[in-house]
Amino acid sequence: MNMQLRDDPARLTASEARRRIDGGALTATRLVAACLERIERREPDVLAWEHVDAKGALETAARLDAGPTTGLLHGIPFGVKDILDTFDQPSTYGSPIYRGHRPPWDAATVALARAQGGIALGKTVTTEFANRHAGKTRNPLDPAHTPGGSSSGSAAAVADFHVPLAIGTQTGGSVVRPAAYCGVYGYKPSFRLLSNTGVRTNTEQFDTVGLMARSVEDVALFKAAVGELPFVPVAPDEVSAPRIGICCTPHWDQTEPATRDALDAAVRALEAAGARVVNVSLPAFFDALDRAHKLICGFESLRNYADELTRWPDQVSEDFKRERVEVGTAASLAEFRDALRLGERARRWMDAMIAEQALDALLTPSAAGEAPEGLASTGQATFNYLWTHLHMPAVTLPHFTGPRGLPVGIQLVGPRYADDRHLSLVAWADRVLAAS
Amino acid sequence: MNMQLRDDPARLTASEARRRIDGGALTATRLVAACLERIERREPDVLAWEHVDAKGALETAARLDAGPTTGLLHGIPFGVKDILDTFDQPSTYGSPIYRGHRPPWDAATVALARAQGGIALGKTVTTEFANRHAGKTRNPLDPAHTPGGSSSGSAAAVADFHVPLAIGTQTGGSVVRPAAYCGVYGYKPSFRLLSNTGVRTNTEQFDTVGLMARSVEDVALFKAAVGELPFVPVAPDEVSAPRIGICCTPHWDQTEPATRDALDAAVRALEAAGARVVNVSLPAFFDALDRAHKLICGFESLRNYADELTRWPDQVSEDFKRERVEVGTAASLAEFRDALRLGERARRWMDAMIAEQALDALLTPSAAGEAPEGLASTGQATFNYLWTHLHMPAVTLPHFTGPRGLPVGIQLVGPRYADDRHLSLVAWADRVLAAS
Repeated sequence: MNMQLRDDPARLTASEARRRIDGGALTATRLVAACLERIERREPDVLAWEHVDAKGALETAARLDAGPTTGLLHGIPFGVKDILDTFDQPSTYGSPIYRGHRPPWDAATVALARAQGGIALGKTVTTEFANRHAGKTRNPLDPAHTPGGSSSGSAAAVADFHVPLAIGTQTGGSVVRPAAYCGVYGYKPSFRLLSNTGVRTNTEQFDTVGLMARSVEDVALFKAAVGELPFVPVAPDEVSAPRIGICCTPHWDQTEPATRDALDAAVRALEAAGARVVNVSLPAFFDALDRAHKLICGFESLRNYADELTRWPDQVSEDFKRERVEVGTAASLAEFRDALRLGERARRWMDAMIAEQALDALLTPSAAGEAPEGLASTGQATFNYLWTHLHMPAVTLPHFTGPRGLPVGIQLVGPRYADDRHLSLVAWADRVLAAS
Repeated sequence: MNMQLRDDPARLTASEARRRIDGGALTATRLVAACLERIERREPDVLAWEHVDAKGALETAARLDAGPTTGLLHGIPFGVKDILDTFDQPSTYGSPIYRGHRPPWDAATVALARAQGGIALGKTVTTEFANRHAGKTRNPLDPAHTPGGSSSGSAAAVADFHVPLAIGTQTGGSVVRPAAYCGVYGYKPSFRLLSNTGVRTNTEQFDTVGLMARSVEDVALFKAAVGELPFVPVAPDEVSAPRIGICCTPHWDQTEPATRDALDAAVRALEAAGARVVNVSLPAFFDALDRAHKLICGFESLRNYADELTRWPDQVSEDFKRERVEVGTAASLAEFRDALRLGERARRWMDAMIAEQALDALLTPSAAGEAPEGLASTGQATFNYLWTHLHMPAVTLPHFTGPRGLPVGIQLVGPRYADDRHLSLVAWADRVLAAS
């Protein structure tokens, strides 16, 4: 990295930028200007943004620079997946039906980030209704490859230094997968830790607001702000000899060699650093969760999108109709109930297993491999839906690459609701892997 | 009832109106006109409506009359609690912040009811954000008394023959309590049976769309329509010797004599008709659910209303700030997690107890007693929050009255997800109590 790049404020993590602003070495205005410059130069290739509010962001930055340095995110620009509402910017949910729609409110997480001094720089591209019909965004590391989805723009914008932080959402694998494909940190919290108010509903049973950043430290900072939660800085030094379970999931046969190699390398490095790594086998009934997940999503989508499907059927994609509406139409009420019960059973089993084996985390793939070539598909949620279904906090770490030089993520999944402890463990693993 | 009243289409149940329309004895236009006449005469005293779309309803009725008789709700007008969105009518959520707000969509349940030929006659009054700051509505049976809340207008409108059906929502007791106070049937389904899309979020953990009607038959019809679920007509004849558990809840000391008398009378009548009635004791840990419920609501409200609390703090009521924001501010993340876990434990216990004792339903108060005097408070959710928290279907039946001649409800609660079977049991009990 040359001097010019190292000095580019757009390359800083949020935590480092926050420290420099606090110390007077950086201003919010300079940081926002640097991000806007980066966006201007790169956006034609990356197409991460649905809307950039340059004027509003610079005005807010000037206002913040004129006042005291207070909130957790004072002066830090962030991106907002366009499935979340913003009162001062369009919110289109990736659908032509809502072109130009202006909600009267901010999504709760956006309002809370702003209340902490964060600057909502713009709306990042989402797939249609945070489902699987792709948006325009390209993988910044290779524009012929998908950035993943549905939080496509958030992952690409953070990876490409447009913003240090971005909000996404995950119903299957929509935070962890694009973060892994773009080589950033992606965090899906425990279910219901962050508010869904002002998020266009995809599947109520699973919708989870998640975060993208370029460090674990930033994930913890951003989480505290958007959740109005106590800021608990990550404490990797307090982690010692963690017990980590390798979980192959029911889909191990779909992993690419690069993912298996990454997991092997991670295990070796973590063990060398003192981790005790054990194998975790899932019971046979977990095999049915894949279908249960799709069935619940379909059952809900058919109903949650009743207005659009009734009044604007021609403007709903064929992808959505095939993958959600058809599945939902074929699903019986009894199957829906059985699927809900299966999820409860799986969560109970997992809670008990983690307690019995005294595990601190599970290690598992973030995706099958590198970001696939092509932009029509955003890849599969194969290695993600399970952790969404189980309500467990999940973080993808970006320390490996595949045969094409694209990132390969590994995923650390924590016990339900133990997000703070999990982020410290993730920070520990991150430090180990960065040094190995 | 004199001849004129008996012939008033506004007095018909939805099912009877539907049969008459089907048979050619009634038109949608005549039914809507009768409802509008009733509203014109009574609304100055009842104040059930935030908005009535007379013109739109008559136009829709004319269009339906000109076509074939198809959907489940063909030609049936219904009211929509103003916490649900409607694309063609204002949606204010009971808050001055949203005066005149026009969402771009219908809530899913509204869209589905319309797709079945239902006519959205207007928006019924809700308390502020479906919480506890009262709206303008009065109890139609005695205007000095509250109609209950938060679905105040829906209950009053159905009780006073403005519409045969109305949609409400329940987070604590906001469907069952007003229905009981106004003397109609109120149904809170199993959690997640009906879509919350287009419902302004109160507390994600508990928000449940519910229904008001003037017969159990209508509840089953309306549920099928708004849920895009199979229409399963109630089958009271198939119910025989049901096992019913009397549940006093941890709050029995708060019941008024009229409620205890109503439950006693109900037990005698149901036993005489063949029911086997047993006592159900809740374990001591259930005592903590009251506080857990309020804590979760407060924790979520502080965050779910971050935008309003940040940008329009002066337009949020003191009631909301005291009952929700202060509770939420005082609640720690650890307490929130513990409260979530307590709910899971209670649901597991209840599932197991119902299975072990082979219970078909629980019988319990709908409210402490008659609707309290005064309009400032909509009463307490004391006898409702538990069933919302436990995700169980609950129906209030209107066969009793108290010392002031106002209705006293009794509540039948069914096993989670067994809504269809539960509605048949309720229909059986309804028939028994009507004849006793």
